Parts: sequence; C-alpha cells; structure tokens
Amino acid sequence: MTPKNNLRFGVIGAGRIGKIHAENLATHIPGVELAAIADVDLKAAEDLAARLHIPKAVDNYQAILSDPTIAAVAICSSTDTHARIVSEAAQAGKHIFCEKPIALDLKTIDAALDAVDKAGVKLQIGFNRRFDPNFRKVHTMIAEGRIGTPQIVRITSRDPAPPPISYVNVSGGMFLDMTIHDFDMARYLSGSEVEEVYTAAGVMVDPNIGEAGDVDTAVITLRFANGAIGTIDNSRKAIYGYDQRVEVFGSEGMLQAHNNTPDNHVYSNADGVHSPKPLYFFLERYAVSFIAELRAFVQSIQENSSPLVTGIDGRIPVVMGMAAKKSYLENRPVKLSEITAPVLQPD
Amino acid sequence: MTPKNNLRFGVIGAGRIGKIHAENLATHIPGVELAAIADVDLKAAEDLAARLHIPKAVDNYQAILSDPTIAAVAICSSTDTHARIVSEAAQAGKHIFCEKPIALDLKTIDAALDAVDKAGVKLQIGFNRRFDPNFRKVHTMIAEGRIGTPQIVRITSRDPAPPPISYVNVSGGMFLDMTIHDFDMARYLSGSEVEEVYTAAGVMVDPNIGEAGDVDTAVITLRFANGAIGTIDNSRKAIYGYDQRVEVFGSEGMLQAHNNTPDNHVYSNADGVHSPKPLYFFLERYAVSFIAELRAFVQSIQENSSPLVTGIDGRIPVVMGMAAKKSYLENRPVKLSEITAPVLQPD
Amino acid sequence: MTPKNNLRFGVIGAGRIGKIHAENLATHIPGVELAAIADVDLKAAEDLAARLHIPKAVDNYQAILSDPTIAAVAICSSTDTHARIVSEAAQAGKHIFCEKPIALDLKTIDAALDAVDKAGVKLQIGFNRRFDPNFRKVHTMIAEGRIGTPQIVRITSRDPAPPPISYVNVSGGMFLDMTIHDFDMARYLSGSEVEEVYTAAGVMVDPNIGEAGDVDTAVITLRFANGAIGTIDNSRKAIYGYDQRVEVFGSEGMLQAHNNTPDNHVYSNADGVHSPKPLYFFLERYAVSFIAELRAFVQSIQENSSPLVTGIDGRIPVVMGMAAKKSYLENRPVKLSEITAPVLQPD
Amino acid sequence: MTPKNNLRFGVIGAGRIGKIHAENLATHIPGVELAAIADVDLKAAEDLAARLHIPKAVDNYQAILSDPTIAAVAICSSTDTHARIVSEAAQAGKHIFCEKPIALDLKTIDAALDAVDKAGVKLQIGFNRRFDPNFRKVHTMIAEGRIGTPQIVRITSRDPAPPPISYVNVSGGMFLDMTIHDFDMARYLSGSEVEEVYTAAGVMVDPNIGEAGDVDTAVITLRFANGAIGTIDNSRKAIYGYDQRVEVFGSEGMLQAHNNTPDNHVYSNADGVHSPKPLYFFLERYAVSFIAELRAFVQSIQENSSPLVTGIDGRIPVVMGMAAKKSYLENRPVKLSEITAPVLQPD
Repeated sequence: MTPKNNLRFGVIGAGRIGKIHAENLATHIPGVELAAIADVDLKAAEDLAARLHIPKAVDNYQAILSDPTIAAVAICSSTDTHARIVSEAAQAGKHIFCEKPIALDLKTIDAALDAVDKAGVKLQIGFNRRFDPNFRKVHTMIAEGRIGTPQIVRITSRDPAPPPISYVNVSGGMFLDMTIHDFDMARYLSGSEVEEVYTAAGVMVDPNIGEAGDVDTAVITLRFANGAIGTIDNSRKAIYGYDQRVEVFGSEGMLQAHNNTPDNHVYSNADGVHSPKPLYFFLERYAVSFIAELRAFVQSIQENSSPLVTGIDGRIPVVMGMAAKKSYLENRPVKLSEITAPVLQPD
Repeated sequence: MTPKNNLRFGVIGAGRIGKIHAENLATHIPGVELAAIADVDLKAAEDLAARLHIPKAVDNYQAILSDPTIAAVAICSSTDTHARIVSEAAQAGKHIFCEKPIALDLKTIDAALDAVDKAGVKLQIGFNRRFDPNFRKVHTMIAEGRIGTPQIVRITSRDPAPPPISYVNVSGGMFLDMTIHDFDMARYLSGSEVEEVYTAAGVMVDPNIGEAGDVDTAVITLRFANGAIGTIDNSRKAIYGYDQRVEVFGSEGMLQAHNNTPDNHVYSNADGVHSPKPLYFFLERYAVSFIAELRAFVQSIQENSSPLVTGIDGRIPVVMGMAAKKSYLENRPVKLSEITAPVLQPD
Repeated sequence: MTPKNNLRFGVIGAGRIGKIHAENLATHIPGVELAAIADVDLKAAEDLAARLHIPKAVDNYQAILSDPTIAAVAICSSTDTHARIVSEAAQAGKHIFCEKPIALDLKTIDAALDAVDKAGVKLQIGFNRRFDPNFRKVHTMIAEGRIGTPQIVRITSRDPAPPPISYVNVSGGMFLDMTIHDFDMARYLSGSEVEEVYTAAGVMVDPNIGEAGDVDTAVITLRFANGAIGTIDNSRKAIYGYDQRVEVFGSEGMLQAHNNTPDNHVYSNADGVHSPKPLYFFLERYAVSFIAELRAFVQSIQENSSPLVTGIDGRIPVVMGMAAKKSYLENRPVKLSEITAPVLQPD
Repeated sequence: MTPKNNLRFGVIGAGRIGKIHAENLATHIPGVELAAIADVDLKAAEDLAARLHIPKAVDNYQAILSDPTIAAVAICSSTDTHARIVSEAAQAGKHIFCEKPIALDLKTIDAALDAVDKAGVKLQIGFNRRFDPNFRKVHTMIAEGRIGTPQIVRITSRDPAPPPISYVNVSGGMFLDMTIHDFDMARYLSGSEVEEVYTAAGVMVDPNIGEAGDVDTAVITLRFANGAIGTIDNSRKAIYGYDQRVEVFGSEGMLQAHNNTPDNHVYSNADGVHSPKPLYFFLERYAVSFIAELRAFVQSIQENSSPLVTGIDGRIPVVMGMAAKKSYLENRPVKLSEITAPVLQPD
C-alpha cells in the first residue's frame, strides 16, 4: 500500500538521537519510508524496528548501504564512525544525513567531504537548531535586512545539567560537543564568517569536568569578517533549565529569540508573578526542529536542491571549536586561519 | 506486523475535523490502529484513507459499526447526525469519541446519552481545549488550591475571521457553535456549575450575520453555584488572530493563560518592540490538544476508567448556550433551570 | 523671591489625599505657590504646613475662600462636604479642583455644578487615572483610530486589601467609592456614554462588608451608546496587589494596559521564572498621575481652556454607580435613564 | 521658615548634570537646602538659581567653598576640574558629591582621594545607576545569595545616539565616558573585582568617531577575582532607544533587569503585537536614581556612615577603562595590574 515513489531510508545507529530520527522518519516525514535500522547492538536495532513497525533490523550498516532499494541514510552512530560511514555511504550512492560533528580532526572531515563531492550525493549535517522556528525567524528577518547591518551577536546556550564524565571523555570537549551548535548559529544568524575567537572559560559546575581536562563554563568572543562582534556564553548547568536565546543587534534594529516553555500560564500570588521554566532540554525544545531538518533534507533530495546545512557548514564549526580551545589554553585571541588551511586544498 | 492488541478505530466523517482525528489516530496515538474511514462522500473517505494508508474506506458508517474487529469510533460527521450515530454505535458496543455538540436539542441528547448508558460503552465528547497545555495547567493548579477559592473567571475567545453565512445558518448560532467551548472551559476551570447567565451581545462584525439571525460579538456573565462570577467575551473577528485566554482570580492568587505564538522572537526598531501574533486559528493553536484528547480517550478504554469529558459534560454546555440565547433575546438573567429539567430524568 | 505671577493655591482637607495634593502643589507643579492649608483638625493643617514650609494653616476653609490672593483651591475634605465647598468656592471666584465624588446624590451635585457654571470658574474632578501614562496612551491611540471601532471594553480593578468597615459605612458603597473610577475609565477609553448596566456581585472577601450592606466582588456589564459592550471586574482584595488593567478590543486591533511594578527584574530558579507584583496600591501606582492631573488643572487655568475632567464627568459616574447598585439589588439590567433626568434640567 | 538643621548645599557647575542635581536638591531631597550655585558662566548660574529660587549665584566656586554655612557640595563642572575641586572642597571641610570620572589619570585621582582621606569628609561618586530600582534589586538579591555563586555577568549598555564629536574629543573615549558606568555595574552586581579585560571593538556607527581616535561599538570580556566571567556590550547608537539591561547567572539561578518603558501598553493589530520602546535616554531612565543617589549621600552625612559609592569605587572603573583601551589597541587580554600599582601606594 506504500506509494511506489516513497524515498526509502535507513537509519544507522539506534541510540538516543537515532531513535528520534527513526521515529520522525517513521511518522512525521511525508514521502519517506523508513526501511531499515542498523546498530552494532542488534537488540537495540530490533527493539526500535519493532516499536516502529520497520521490517529490517541489522547489526551491520553495510547491509543498508548495499540495499539498492534504499536511497538515503541517517548516520546517528558514535562520532568516531561518522566520517567513515559518510565516505562509504557516498560511495554506495546514498544521500546522507549525518549528525554533527563529522569528525574531530580536519583531515578526516576533508576526506569524507571529498568522497561526498566525488559521488555527487546530498549531504546534510544535523545542525537542527537552524530549523527551530525562533532562530529561523530571526535568521530570515536579518536576511531580509530588518535590522540593517548586524553589529553585535549574542548567543546564550546553557544546558540544564552536565553530561556524565564518560561522555566528557569522548565528546571532544565542550567546545566541540556543545558550543559547536552555537558556532553554527553565529554563522547562520550573522550571514558572515568568523575570523577570530577569544575564549574565557573555567570550571565552575563540576570539578570532575576539570579533572577530565574540560571546562564547563565559557564566554567566547567572535570577530566576524563583516566587522561584527559576537559573544557566546555557555554553561553546563542552568538550574532553571535549558536556556537557548539569541540576540542580534544591528544598525536598524534588534532581533531576539526567547526561550520556549511547556505552557503559557502565569501565576500571581502574594510572593510575586510566576511563569514556567524553559522546556527541559533539547529533546523537548528542538522536537519540532528535528522533524523540520529531515523534511528539508528529503525536500533537497526530491527537488535536487542544495541541502540547507552543507558539509562545509559541518566543517567550519569544528575549526571554530579548535580555535576556541586553543584560545582558552593560550589566553589570547586566535585566528581561524591558524587552525586550518583553506578548505579542500592540499595541506 | 501490527501488534495484536492494538485498539482498532473507525473514523466517521472525513471533513475538516475528521481529517485531523484520522491523521492523529494514524500516526500520533500509540496503541491504536486506524482501520476504516466512512463518509457519505465516498471519494472523500477514499482519498483520506489512501493518504494515510488505511485499508478500508466506505460511504456507509454502518459498515464500520458492524465490523466486529473495530472497537471504537470517532464521530466527526455533521452535527445533525451525531446523536443518531452515538446511539447506534453504543448499541453496536463501540466506544465512542464524539465531536461537540451532541445535538442542538436536549431530548435528542438525552436519548443518545441513555443509549450509551445502557450499552456501558465509553463516550468522550470533543472538548479538546481541556487538553490544551495552558488551560490544563490552569485547571490543575486551581484544583490543587493554588488560588484558594475561585471568585472571578474571565474567558476571552475570539476567532480570527467569521465563518461563512452558510455555516452560521446551520451551526445553531454563535452560542452553541463557538461559545460552547467557553461554557465548557468555565466549568472545567472553576470546578463549579453555572446556575445563571446574562448575555449582552450584538452584531458588530458583519451585518449578514445579523440578518441570519445570529450575533457576532458577546459578553456573557456567569453565576456559579459556588458564588463565583464569570465573564466570557466573544468576537467572530479579531484582526490580530485567534485570541484564546483565560484568567481565574481567587482568594489566594490569580492564574492566567496567555496566547501561543508561532515563535518567540522579539523585534525592536525605531517604531517600538514587536512580537508575533497568536497562532492563526484552532488547527494551529489546538494541534497538540487534538492529539492529547484522543490519547486520553484511548487510555480510558485501555484502563477502563471514566473519560475526562463525559456525556453530561457534552450536554451542559448546550443548556448554557440555550440559556445565553434566551438571555440575549429577553435582555435579562436566565437561570439554567429555566431551560432544562434535571438530566436523564423523565420530561 | 516667588515670581509674582504664580498661581496661589489653598488646600482644603489635610487627610491622606490632601497631603498628596499639598505635597505635589508644593514641589512638583511649576507656576504654583501653595499658600494655605485648611483642616477642621487644626493640628493636622499645621503639621502639614510646617513640613511643606507653607505660611498659613487654618481650621476654617472660609479663611482660604476669603483670601483675595488665593486663586484656586483643592477640595480634599470628607465627601459629604465636597458639594457645599464647591458652591462656596465658586461664589468666591476660586478655581476648583475637587476630589471625587462631588456628592452621593444628584440634586446636591447639580446644585454645585450650577454654582460653578454661574461663577464661570474652572472645575476639575479628581479622576486622576485619566492621567496615568498607561491609560492615557490607550485612550489616545483609540482616539486616533488605531483599533478602529471599539467593540469590547474590559476593565480590571482590584484593590490589595479592603478598607476598614468604618469607611465602608460612609463611602456610599463599593460602586460609588471604588468602581466609580472604572466607570470614568469606561467613558474615557471608549469615547462613548454608557446607557445600561448589569451587575453580578457578591460578598466573597469579608462577611463584615456584607453585614454593612455592601459587596466586595463584582462583575458589571456595560452597554455603550455606540453599541460596544464593556465589563468591569472588581475585588476588594487581590492578594498579589493592586491590579489595574484595561483592554479595549476593536475592529482594527486591541489595546491593553498592563500593571506597573516596582522594578523590572526577572528571577529564574529551579521553581520557575519570577517577576515582581504590581505596585502596592494607588499611592504608588498613581503617584505620577496625581501630579499630572494638577499640572493639567493649572494649565487649564493659565490657558483658560476647558479642564480635562469636567463637572459632568464627575456627575455621570455617580449615576452609573447608582444604576449598578440598583441592578445588583434587582438582578436585572438597569438603564441610566432610570436613575436620572437629563443633566442640569429641572427635576 | 526653613528648619535650622537643614544641610546646606552648593552646586558647582550649572550644565546639564548640574541642573539635574540642583533641581533635585531644591525639591526632592528632604533635609537639604540648596544655598548656592556656581558656574564659570555667571549667567547660567543665575538663571538656574532664579528658576529654583536659590538666593546665591556666583561665577567662582571658591565663594561656595569659603561659605561656612555650606556643608556639602555637588561637583558637576567639567571633568578636568573635578579632582582639583575635590581637593579644595575637602580642605575646606565640605562633604563632596562628585560626578564621574574623578579624573582621567590615576595620579590626579589619587591626589584627590588622598585629600579627602586627610580631611575626613564624605565623598560619593556619581555612579547613579547603582540606585536604579532594577539594578539595585538585582544587586540585593545576588548579595542575599538568591543565585548562589555568580558565574556569568552580562551587561548591555547602548545609547540611543552618539554624542557630538566635540564631546568625543574631550571625554576620554568611549571606555572612560560610557563604559565606565558598566565597569562600575560589573563590580556592583558581582561583588567581586575584575582582574583582566579583553576588548573587541570597532567603528560601526560613525566614521567620524573613528577619525577622532575612538570606537563606537565594543564587546568587553571581564575576568573576575572570584572566577566569574563577564561581558559588556556597548553601542553608541541603538535605533530603538536606550538599552540598559543586565543578566547575572549563578549556580542557583539567574537575575535579569529589563528595560523601562514610558508606559505599559500593548497594541495588537494585523501586523503583530507591539509595545513601547525603552525610555529615551539617561535623563528619563535614571531620573529616579539621580534623586536616590543624593538622598543616600545626604543620609551618609546625617548618619555619619560610609557613602555607598566611595572614592575607590570612582577610581577602579578608570583603571578598567584604561585596561580596556590597552586591550583594544594591543588585541590581547590585559590585567588591571598592568595599569596601576595598588591604590594609594607610592608609585
């Protein structure tokens, strides 16, 4: 009964983010048929497949890549496997939706992007916040010129609770795991590239994070190519919940995006006027944008248009994260050009 | 591959509201299988079934009622058929989700409720706003005693645009078509029954509505059994969009529910500070509550618990609408006891 | 050293409101010299005069009326003396600022207005809320046509705590003491006269108020000459403070005025997002409008223009209060024409 | 008739800020008598004195310092005269309220503070924003521990329009003229000293400002002694008006202060929901805090308590401004210890 022309998808990785994408592909994305789920833990793949009524569950993602009826994959496996699977999927002619980051080193990223380029398949990186209605609206109004020339960009991004130390140990550190979304947001909102960063950071939330060689609180200054100045502030623990706001100030106005809340009630009593905290964490806050990014990816395949988050868009925030870390370690402004030769050129 | 114990549903009526419920049943309600769609317009039923991959489309709802594999129906047909189908579905042993109003006269309503009562099936009425997160939160906090004794209830309910005159002619009028939701909300929030209403109303939006014998603007005062006083204000046309707010004031505090917006951006420029209008209309504003009411209905079947919106909850707002109209016509306060003998007693 | 052309003022009544006006006249109103204070309690007059460095304190207001160097008086004595002093002051050729209400019966009011009319002096009534920046802005934007035709007017006016029973006994009751401001606001915002009122009211705050023959909670429906419908809700006790809001809905938009707060901080913690309660009571909320109304009065004298709140503006809300009470007692809509013959005509 | 024990004040400087302080001293500060005004432009002094009914106007501030009936002075003259007059006033035994900055070089500042110290008079610096109700509330709640340990401090401070170039030429530059208030605010809110600053700045508003050797837009990162990180963003031109907000994030919560507006109306129409811009500029926004700082100064004299903004509080932001400028010029973080030896020690 499924229409013949549906786009058949495979999901690779049945962990937290894989489950979200699989569920969305199974129910919320018109024109798509979720055909198979792979996970190194076969049981995890089977459980997810059963719950979503998906016929095929495998422990080897190559079974998906070699299935000629499958046109696209969503790569949701562990970070250290992203780049390899991107390359193999590209060689197999699959369109690719890949979670961020592509990899934690540039040589690996560039090799994967090169494979995609050669295969001519679509690649979209999972910077889902670009599809959040608040940030999208701010982006669009800036692009329309509603605030004139952007001059000051402020991004607040604070998590409700720090990740387990086990995750800190493999994530690449806060700049590459958490701030990477804000680096992408800075580019997305300003429409300009960042040339230099300066990081002030420290360990204020949990000394174990410091012992693991990472920081948990940071304020990062960005210098944009167009002259604008930006600042990102991060904390691993905001006691009032997930704090995700942006503000862009320009010559003709200012645009802000406030937090979303579970409801819009207001309670007034003898103590004051009380309203709800932000939605708890990214699963709640970005539920809509996880769906929207997949819809956009499917549309770019169907219409053969450029994905809204390209491979280069996936690479640059990694460079920014590396520069931010170097700036922190050396306590000085660091140019992105110190980190990386121009993209896709021989180094 | 569908789990054996799924609750099989039929949707009766493939119009605007039927489409919403069918789509939600097909994708958003765990434990449910949408098995069949009926509409007097067979093409409409077939189109909807095809889009949602539903195997059965019929033009005769009896084909659903006589299907022993179907356990529950959602009645989304035209208002004048609600009560008859409720009775027949009850006699066929189906659990029933029925759109409001059950009927426009009490004798018909009572006969339907009687049939449900005799059959011992579940009946839930489609007052979806009880499942809106804003109103639900206000209701819950009041029930928890957070504002002490409710004293003043204020409900604002304004549509973005009036319905076509063809609809005005058959809807039963603004009080039974639009205000009926607010009557339900008044009971839901206050936890008390309304005993008397006074209506001030007029035709301010469109003279054609007046010529059709209806009003388009109203302020209705409610006297509750517990002594509280309420006011509902309605307009068929709010130029800034769908305005759906409540405020309940009590001895220990006040609870308000504000409007929802498409996003949370704020734009400041030389003219002022600008933020978005409310979500356009009920499809957008209540998208979440349409899903939640079906989930609750399914849960009440699965757990054999009382539905959260009962048949009596469907009947009383009709009485209130009748009283509101009588008050308007006679320009005096009207007691609900003038309209109706006690429920389910011989009249 | 005082400029010769200053307007010399006398304040009659050194109670709570007299103190406010005296202090404002002494310090905040350019072009004015506060020359004398009268109070039946000479000590009160002397204390106030000493604190403000005013040379003259008397226990007999006639000493002010007979002082040829004094051009204007502010009547802040007890309500039952307002009308008599208005008449005498008019006969003495003084311009008159008089606190509301002029009197609690229309014959007395009309006699006073007649005396003012004959003397040709200025009379401004102390409906200070017209000078509140929030309400003034809403009024002005409505007058500019920004919301098109006003259709629904909503006024919320709730006190933080009920007055002492001794005050309830002499105030004329809630409708003439408290709601009178809201009646004036309804006329001020809508630009239209009220023709009929319907009152739903009760005793919910303090049974002693009921025993004194008054109510403490009310919702009043207003029918305006231009077809608009209004509603006022009152409570003698809002636990979260002084609640003073208006909302006017029209064919082209809506205007609202929100509460003012002592500051604009917002506090987010694990329990939610918290902001300040409204300013405590009228002394805080309307501090600015008490000054602005006197400035406007002085300006109307200096420029020989019509006061912004006339004697008729003082009379009509008394009629509305009488109609509201009659409606409450008889539980039916009451036309203002039932209360009063046309203004200034023989009765 | 003036009470004998009033504190007699002289105001030195009858320019914009002198007028504000003189008017406030003349009308809003209990226990004070404004006795004399001095300005090098005698006409300006005389005009202001006449308007406020002050008996003495002179062109030589020494006439005030030598008047034994005058106990305190407010120094509102041009910045380059502040330190000298502070010293002379201290030697004359006057208590001193001095506008910021004390001077633009530390040796001069330290000499003035030394003179004050030796004379044992009170000195309060005009950082009026500490007395703004919003910021004061945030400060107090932080001091009470309501947000736990402060971790991130964000200060937004944007003017509605740049000053004339003539002012830019003598002001000491944006960091010492405008940001100086924000440096003080950072210390006031955090309760900690700043140890290092990093400045990203540019000319985005007006190239003439750049030609004058100054910047008009900046983002400054602050490292506090207690480990917290701060960021100040400045613009000389916010098209939507004077933007004065703070946010302090800590281990147990967040405190924000939003902008103040002329009124609290909200206007909804077909284009969206619109509310007022911030109060235009510092005269409007800080009208209340200009009064409150003088009241606090008078109180510190009357009660012989320490002023709430001391000479050291006036000195440190100058050091911060110098460090911010040095950081901008050298594009590197600069420690405050690079600028200055410890206060009041021989250099």
